[in-house]
Amino acid sequence: MPKMFRNKIKIKTERRTQLVDITAQVENVVRESGCDDGVCYVYVSHTTAGVIVNEGYDPDVARDIEVTLDRLVPREGDYCHDEGNSDAHIKTALTSSSAVIFIEGGKLLLGRWQKIFFCEFDGPRHREIWLKVCPDAAG
Amino acid sequence: MPKMFRNKIKIKTERRTQLVDITAQVENVVRESGCDDGVCYVYVSHTTAGVIVNEGYDPDVARDIEVTLDRLVPREGDYCHDEGNSDAHIKTALTSSSAVIFIEGGKLLLGRWQKIFFCEFDGPRHREIWLKVCPDAAG
Amino acid sequence: MPKMFRNKIKIKTERRTQLVDITAQVENVVRESGCDDGVCYVYVSHTTAGVIVNEGYDPDVARDIEVTLDRLVPREGDYCHDEGNSDAHIKTALTSSSAVIFIEGGKLLLGRWQKIFFCEFDGPRHREIWLKVCPDAAG
Repeated sequence: MPKMFRNKIKIKTERRTQLVDITAQVENVVRESGCDDGVCYVYVSHTTAGVIVNEGYDPDVARDIEVTLDRLVPREGDYCHDEGNSDAHIKTALTSSSAVIFIEGGKLLLGRWQKIFFCEFDGPRHREIWLKVCPDAAG
Repeated sequence: MPKMFRNKIKIKTERRTQLVDITAQVENVVRESGCDDGVCYVYVSHTTAGVIVNEGYDPDVARDIEVTLDRLVPREGDYCHDEGNSDAHIKTALTSSSAVIFIEGGKLLLGRWQKIFFCEFDGPRHREIWLKVCPDAAG
Repeated sequence: MPKMFRNKIKIKTERRTQLVDITAQVENVVRESGCDDGVCYVYVSHTTAGVIVNEGYDPDVARDIEVTLDRLVPREGDYCHDEGNSDAHIKTALTSSSAVIFIEGGKLLLGRWQKIFFCEFDGPRHREIWLKVCPDAAG
């Protein structure tokens, strides 16, 4: 019977607000897991960064998401938290700390234009993403 | 031992921004799966549409969500992506590409007022929603 | 073979918009489940409340998230739904109705600063949170 597999991805972000396409690294972990069919959970263990699935073909889409989140939740504002990164916590709440993607035939089952993006909101920093690959019950 | 079941729903949206209640179609797939107890994953493979769980009793709630998302992220704005649908990608990031719902006694375990909504942000279009039903381990 | 475990948490919120740290209650359910390694799903069955994972060390972070959501989606606005809580439904759509957290060694695998927050948007109310603990396949 297939087994669960867990691993980490480590990345280095370059800007304060930055969407980073991590699809290839997630694919590598799925390959490493040996899982043919199952579910892949992507989990961000930070509180000033999130994860989304979105368009990865035109990099302008990621840029537009970054700019718009910065417009909706500016770095400066009516904040009490005194570390100067309340906006980053709020953007994390508006995106998500986790994503789930199906696995089929040993590959991530993504839509044609979909990529997995780590969402840095308080970079540049060294970051970790936790992955868990759960094979389907064998039946 | 129970087995995983996967299927697709196909819908046709009618407006550019439109929440579509897909609960009945998801229920049908759960019934078809034969799963008594488990988890149902709803996954949107598009990058200009999402999925949420929200109130389905009064259709004005869906309308208020649509109007407010259009106010927060207008169609026209400081966008680089030249396809004219950056707002739709951003709304997808603010909602979600997936939802998870428990299954109990062969039915979706939803709260009293909860329905599952496909969130169209760049319609009208033909759309697909991927579903995966994972039965609980038999123990 | 390990079995699925399901339970509920009941809480009482005190303010209209309020993030409530429910990590200890979720930990209790994980302990009660006897699960060593697996996945914990947190599901909010209400349509005017959500769940997020965010910083729990400085309570000002939760306060800043509350205030910013109230700024982005004010209680009064161009709403059709006549119960006066459209903003609460919209804030639920912007956060999430569910969260997934890994379990390892019988404990929630959270990042150093992460806590699980129930997000009340139409309180004060009595609320329920549904939990499901799914052990990993034994292999």
